[in-house]
Amino acid sequence: MKTYQQKYGAPPGSLIYVGPKQHVSSKITCISFNENEILEASYSDFESCNASLLKNHINWINIEGVDNVKLIDAIGIAYKLHPLTLEDILHLEQRPKCEDYEHYLMATLKMLRYTSTIESEQVTLILLQNTIITFQQPDNGDAFEVIRNRLKAAKGRVRKMGADYLFYALMDAIVDWYFHVIEALADRIAKIEEKIMEEQEHKDLMELYRIKRELIFLRKQVWPLRDMISALNREPHALIAESSTLYFRDLLDHSTRIIDSVESQRDLIAGLMDVHLSSNSNRMNEVMKTLTILSSVFIPVTFIAGVYGMNFKDMPGLYKPYGYAIIWGLMLVIMGGLLFYFKRKKWF
Amino acid sequence: MKTYQQKYGAPPGSLIYVGPKQHVSSKITCISFNENEILEASYSDFESCNASLLKNHINWINIEGVDNVKLIDAIGIAYKLHPLTLEDILHLEQRPKCEDYEHYLMATLKMLRYTSTIESEQVTLILLQNTIITFQQPDNGDAFEVIRNRLKAAKGRVRKMGADYLFYALMDAIVDWYFHVIEALADRIAKIEEKIMEEQEHKDLMELYRIKRELIFLRKQVWPLRDMISALNREPHALIAESSTLYFRDLLDHSTRIIDSVESQRDLIAGLMDVHLSSNSNRMNEVMKTLTILSSVFIPVTFIAGVYGMNFKDMPGLYKPYGYAIIWGLMLVIMGGLLFYFKRKKWF
Amino acid sequence: MKTYQQKYGAPPGSLIYVGPKQHVSSKITCISFNENEILEASYSDFESCNASLLKNHINWINIEGVDNVKLIDAIGIAYKLHPLTLEDILHLEQRPKCEDYEHYLMATLKMLRYTSTIESEQVTLILLQNTIITFQQPDNGDAFEVIRNRLKAAKGRVRKMGADYLFYALMDAIVDWYFHVIEALADRIAKIEEKIMEEQEHKDLMELYRIKRELIFLRKQVWPLRDMISALNREPHALIAESSTLYFRDLLDHSTRIIDSVESQRDLIAGLMDVHLSSNSNRMNEVMKTLTILSSVFIPVTFIAGVYGMNFKDMPGLYKPYGYAIIWGLMLVIMGGLLFYFKRKKWF
Amino acid sequence: MKTYQQKYGAPPGSLIYVGPKQHVSSKITCISFNENEILEASYSDFESCNASLLKNHINWINIEGVDNVKLIDAIGIAYKLHPLTLEDILHLEQRPKCEDYEHYLMATLKMLRYTSTIESEQVTLILLQNTIITFQQPDNGDAFEVIRNRLKAAKGRVRKMGADYLFYALMDAIVDWYFHVIEALADRIAKIEEKIMEEQEHKDLMELYRIKRELIFLRKQVWPLRDMISALNREPHALIAESSTLYFRDLLDHSTRIIDSVESQRDLIAGLMDVHLSSNSNRMNEVMKTLTILSSVFIPVTFIAGVYGMNFKDMPGLYKPYGYAIIWGLMLVIMGGLLFYFKRKKWF
Amino acid sequence: MKTYQQKYGAPPGSLIYVGPKQHVSSKITCISFNENEILEASYSDFESCNASLLKNHINWINIEGVDNVKLIDAIGIAYKLHPLTLEDILHLEQRPKCEDYEHYLMATLKMLRYTSTIESEQVTLILLQNTIITFQQPDNGDAFEVIRNRLKAAKGRVRKMGADYLFYALMDAIVDWYFHVIEALADRIAKIEEKIMEEQEHKDLMELYRIKRELIFLRKQVWPLRDMISALNREPHALIAESSTLYFRDLLDHSTRIIDSVESQRDLIAGLMDVHLSSNSNRMNEVMKTLTILSSVFIPVTFIAGVYGMNFKDMPGLYKPYGYAIIWGLMLVIMGGLLFYFKRKKWF
Repeated sequence: MKTYQQKYGAPPGSLIYVGPKQHVSSKITCISFNENEILEASYSDFESCNASLLKNHINWINIEGVDNVKLIDAIGIAYKLHPLTLEDILHLEQRPKCEDYEHYLMATLKMLRYTSTIESEQVTLILLQNTIITFQQPDNGDAFEVIRNRLKAAKGRVRKMGADYLFYALMDAIVDWYFHVIEALADRIAKIEEKIMEEQEHKDLMELYRIKRELIFLRKQVWPLRDMISALNREPHALIAESSTLYFRDLLDHSTRIIDSVESQRDLIAGLMDVHLSSNSNRMNEVMKTLTILSSVFIPVTFIAGVYGMNFKDMPGLYKPYGYAIIWGLMLVIMGGLLFYFKRKKWF
Repeated sequence: MKTYQQKYGAPPGSLIYVGPKQHVSSKITCISFNENEILEASYSDFESCNASLLKNHINWINIEGVDNVKLIDAIGIAYKLHPLTLEDILHLEQRPKCEDYEHYLMATLKMLRYTSTIESEQVTLILLQNTIITFQQPDNGDAFEVIRNRLKAAKGRVRKMGADYLFYALMDAIVDWYFHVIEALADRIAKIEEKIMEEQEHKDLMELYRIKRELIFLRKQVWPLRDMISALNREPHALIAESSTLYFRDLLDHSTRIIDSVESQRDLIAGLMDVHLSSNSNRMNEVMKTLTILSSVFIPVTFIAGVYGMNFKDMPGLYKPYGYAIIWGLMLVIMGGLLFYFKRKKWF
Repeated sequence: MKTYQQKYGAPPGSLIYVGPKQHVSSKITCISFNENEILEASYSDFESCNASLLKNHINWINIEGVDNVKLIDAIGIAYKLHPLTLEDILHLEQRPKCEDYEHYLMATLKMLRYTSTIESEQVTLILLQNTIITFQQPDNGDAFEVIRNRLKAAKGRVRKMGADYLFYALMDAIVDWYFHVIEALADRIAKIEEKIMEEQEHKDLMELYRIKRELIFLRKQVWPLRDMISALNREPHALIAESSTLYFRDLLDHSTRIIDSVESQRDLIAGLMDVHLSSNSNRMNEVMKTLTILSSVFIPVTFIAGVYGMNFKDMPGLYKPYGYAIIWGLMLVIMGGLLFYFKRKKWF
Repeated sequence: MKTYQQKYGAPPGSLIYVGPKQHVSSKITCISFNENEILEASYSDFESCNASLLKNHINWINIEGVDNVKLIDAIGIAYKLHPLTLEDILHLEQRPKCEDYEHYLMATLKMLRYTSTIESEQVTLILLQNTIITFQQPDNGDAFEVIRNRLKAAKGRVRKMGADYLFYALMDAIVDWYFHVIEALADRIAKIEEKIMEEQEHKDLMELYRIKRELIFLRKQVWPLRDMISALNREPHALIAESSTLYFRDLLDHSTRIIDSVESQRDLIAGLMDVHLSSNSNRMNEVMKTLTILSSVFIPVTFIAGVYGMNFKDMPGLYKPYGYAIIWGLMLVIMGGLLFYFKRKKWF
Repeated sequence: MKTYQQKYGAPPGSLIYVGPKQHVSSKITCISFNENEILEASYSDFESCNASLLKNHINWINIEGVDNVKLIDAIGIAYKLHPLTLEDILHLEQRPKCEDYEHYLMATLKMLRYTSTIESEQVTLILLQNTIITFQQPDNGDAFEVIRNRLKAAKGRVRKMGADYLFYALMDAIVDWYFHVIEALADRIAKIEEKIMEEQEHKDLMELYRIKRELIFLRKQVWPLRDMISALNREPHALIAESSTLYFRDLLDHSTRIIDSVESQRDLIAGLMDVHLSSNSNRMNEVMKTLTILSSVFIPVTFIAGVYGMNFKDMPGLYKPYGYAIIWGLMLVIMGGLLFYFKRKKWF
């Protein structure tokens, strides 16, 4: 989640690498395939790579390491890429985006990996006629490995279909990895949830949370359900007769009612959570008031009793006839005064 | 709410079952009906099922248990289903969705059941010309039972209308079960609400919650009301004369005003809840300060009194003439010092 | 806010009454009017009602009590209502909605009443050519009473205009009652607000709430203001010359700036409320620490003093020469140890 | 913020005044002007006003005090205003709105004033061919005063342009006053903010709030920035060459990234505020536990020591040889028992 | 963040400067360039500047300091700018906006700088045929400096392309500075985050926050990802064959599922945070109750023991035979009564 120093003030489209230092030089690999054969090679410079591309094949050029401005520039010239595209490749802080240019399509997205935290690396894909160029940071070729293996094994559709399918397959491989991250987080959430629920014994609170969790699950189900039924209503398939459309409208109505209910229940649960929290603090107020009144009333008089329990020889009053009664009077006055004070403060 | 292991890296459209282990083999049942007759049969393999389908009837093929990849594959070939459709059937983590293909319509949704928690099982429906194929997980045929009974009893529209109506009826049966879940949750919410309200005695808080609940209810009523009047304004029915449209515009205006008021009142109640919570903690602060000041002032001097109440033989000062006065002086200094300290801290 | 048992599994459009038990039989009343005359009659069955309808008049048939499935069915047949419409009439858990059918328009909405809580009853209106049929639950004919009186008094437009205007007038009468509910809630909110504000004395909190309230009011004013100016910009009236449109664009800009400010101020107030709450608890922490340190330091040593204040005959050490000093040493060590412990915990 | 009694049950468009009692009679003033001359007059009845209107001038009729139903009715007839318009004029609880009628345009909005609280008064403007009629409540003619003075001084565009410009100018004058209200609130917020920040010393909390404030400010800047760049992209001006549009798309992308960052930072700050609050209460828990354990362990034994410090003549055990040891044993057992109890409760 | 006094009541489009006092006079600089040459000059008045403009060059006139109403007026006349444009230039409280006029395009935006807080200054850009006029407040020419240097160095596209590109480049330079502000805030957030996390030791809370942070990051990634795939689906590029579109629809579905999961996880984490906070306060309640019960039960009886430990000569009961037993009885009654009271309050 680090932010690299921006290149403020540089003209737009200027080729300056913005990202972490790389310690290895860029690696160029190229896979050329058609339905019948597949060739894979590594190159140290782009010129030799470009020279060895095969017509009538689909060529997938993969660049690992994008800090080599000259290399990027050379590719840009060879494939007539727009300066802004080249800038986006070099600038590793892109927002996932897809941009149309006349003769090519550029997609920039993040490859996410989960180790102990989420790690994100930028990948740029350029779809040209029969050619795909991918740019990635070094040492994270894993997501593409799957595609490479599939290509070599001649499994699946990827060898038979065009560059656009490969373009899709690469993006799909990247997006698939997002599910890993989601699952890793789901695990962590499950663990902390279990721990929190174990540690605490208040049944109301646990039930509130459990209902909340059910509602979150339900919500995740019913919103897409409504979307789906709504889509059925908006553009009914040819197989659905017009006389049936009224029924699908009715179904849409039902699903909307379900959503209304789920949302209302969410609001209710939120309200109850507030009440629970608030009544907690009300109760604590009660407890504290009780403690404070009792302590406050007895602490001063206990002090007085303590004073007259001291063993000084010459304490005035100890031997006077009404000493004891006077002290009791004093103590009662103090206690009454404090009680009156708390009463006036409406503490009880 | 378990998440099954994804099949990362597999090519899109590859037929790999993703879901819990099943312990029974897949069951194929087929109901063929028209307005006059109805036939129901079970098959152990798809070929014999497919062979026995009746032309001029509507055929509903139900597959229970979707872990049989070969079976799914066979169906896919027989009905020319797209690989992505087959993948969606096998992959039990789908988002509810409805996809148009040229010659068929696929709907994937979750059948929800409420036992002690929400249980969700995936159902896929394929609508073809005169044929419906449904795929479900084993042992949860309940939602469809209703439709089966209706078909057999020749009740309702379902026997007279086409496959699209059956398609609707099956989806409706599934969605109907969502209301069960909503009601089960509503019961649980009602119970916990009653318990929380019973346990707590603060009247303001209860009133705040009650108003909030009324507003949640009102909101659930007025938003669809506005939608409905808005729809009347957007596309007035042929029966509504143009001279009357101004009045419906006025009605829309009224309903919008109602929504504005409800939303403002929600904001006000939220604000009051905050104030309630915050004034609780202000009050607690007051109570705590009182306790702390009183305790702090008397605790050290009570200790001193305790010290001079010890029965040691040789305690210095006990027999000195000004001992008692000096100790009193010390105690007063301590008390005054503490009071001064709290005063400076603006605690009172 | 009770939910009635759903009719799960029943075929869509099946006529099963879903609602509370009714103890009276359905009541049919019919008002037929044109500009010149008005006739009102009650019927016990639909056939005699239907027979007595007048051509060239507008007929308003009101059905009170919708649990009579046969009656509803008869009306459905007589007016060719769609089965789904009949189902919606009988099912008292509808979401407010308005549905177009070819020869009629159906509107289902809730009539809300405020007694000590919100009571909701379902009303269905069917607008046909020159005829309106309304279905309501028994004993809540009040909202329509107004229209009935207006019709009889030949006041207002309602006698002169068509069935569509009556349709509007009935819906308007229902929506008017929502304002009652809003006002009743506003009263309750005002009362609880006054009570909460009275009980609490913290000036900052009160000011925060007051500002919040002003912002809620302001917000309620400025959003519709912007909508209105935006509408003026989108579709300027013929009376507004094109040369003036720039000025209205400027006005829109102003109103948007006002909204931006109001929303920012709302955020600021929310932030300040958080700070207030958080600083409350910070302050409480301070108070508690002071109390805890002082109490903790003195409580053990006071206990020791108490022990040596006991009047046992044979207490060791009382008569030893350094007993007193040793005990003082012990007490100082305990006090110092505790202070050191709190210091290391960074409590002061 | 008072709500006036609604006129429930009255037919729509019926002329009943809904608002506070007025103690003065309605005042009619009329300003007729063209580029060369300007005439201002007051009238006691509408007929004489209407008679004195000048053709070829723009006439601005201002009605102060809208409780005179007859007057409103007369104006309605004279200018063929729709009954719903007249109702809106008389009903002082309108939502700001602008309604098109064939030969006129009606705008209803609130004139807001800030004294010690927000005061709102309703103004209705009717734009007709060469004529404007404004309706306002008495004694708040201030916002219009500015326009009147400008008209008389022949300053600005208002004398040269048509009634539509005057219509705009009047609305602009009203909207300008909203900024007063915003500023008055901004002042109050600034004051309470300063006070709250001054009173509290926790640096983390202050920093959190300061960052939050910066983010609120930033957000207010970047959302309109994006809107503006987005508008540039959607409908580029003729002066922007097509070859440059790619660059503006890039700019839009940048502004969206800025918004993403601001929103993420808002979420982070909210999360940190939660952590701060939660760790506060965790810390308080720690403090409270320490206090409770220490107090609880010593309070009972101090009581026992106190008992044996009483000066009763006949206390059993005082003179027994092992009395002291037994009591110590009892006290240690109590202390150990309590410590064991707290240990088992995992308080330390 | 200061708000300058508005110019209420001034006619729209009137030229009154609204902003802070400026202490320097306005500075006019003009850069005229084409691909071959570049000229830069400063002028003290607009007339001489205007006279020296070069045809066939692109002229960029920069006005620093916008309080010179006469100057603005002169420019307005020379370039036929609309009065509202001139007003916007002079009024330094604009909302970022872009307005189309027939022969020019106006953009107003804020230049943000971060010193110790965010500083904002208004910049207005006017794009005319071959000419750009920029208006800025004095002493903040930094953002434009970059463009000036690039122009002089003849670097980049800016010298070769038209005024529209310069218009873009200037806006881009301003927007670039927003990233500075974002980064400065990110730094401050990182610092306070580190501090808060360091200070607090509760592991659950830290884990909750860490997961929350990951989710915020993930969310920032997946929403634009979905947008991008959605755009690919809506308007597929010519290079994507129709047979592949189904696969991109599948990809969209995946990305939507990811978003659903992230949002659900956010809700879960929020719920767990609530539970954590609430169980904190439950636990504190427990602790407080224990303390209160123990203290309350022993404080009064310790007082009584203290009373009978006083050394008064004439204390009644001390020498009575059952005195001690009676006092013990009294103390037990008090303790039992208090325990009974707390029991009835359900404190234990």
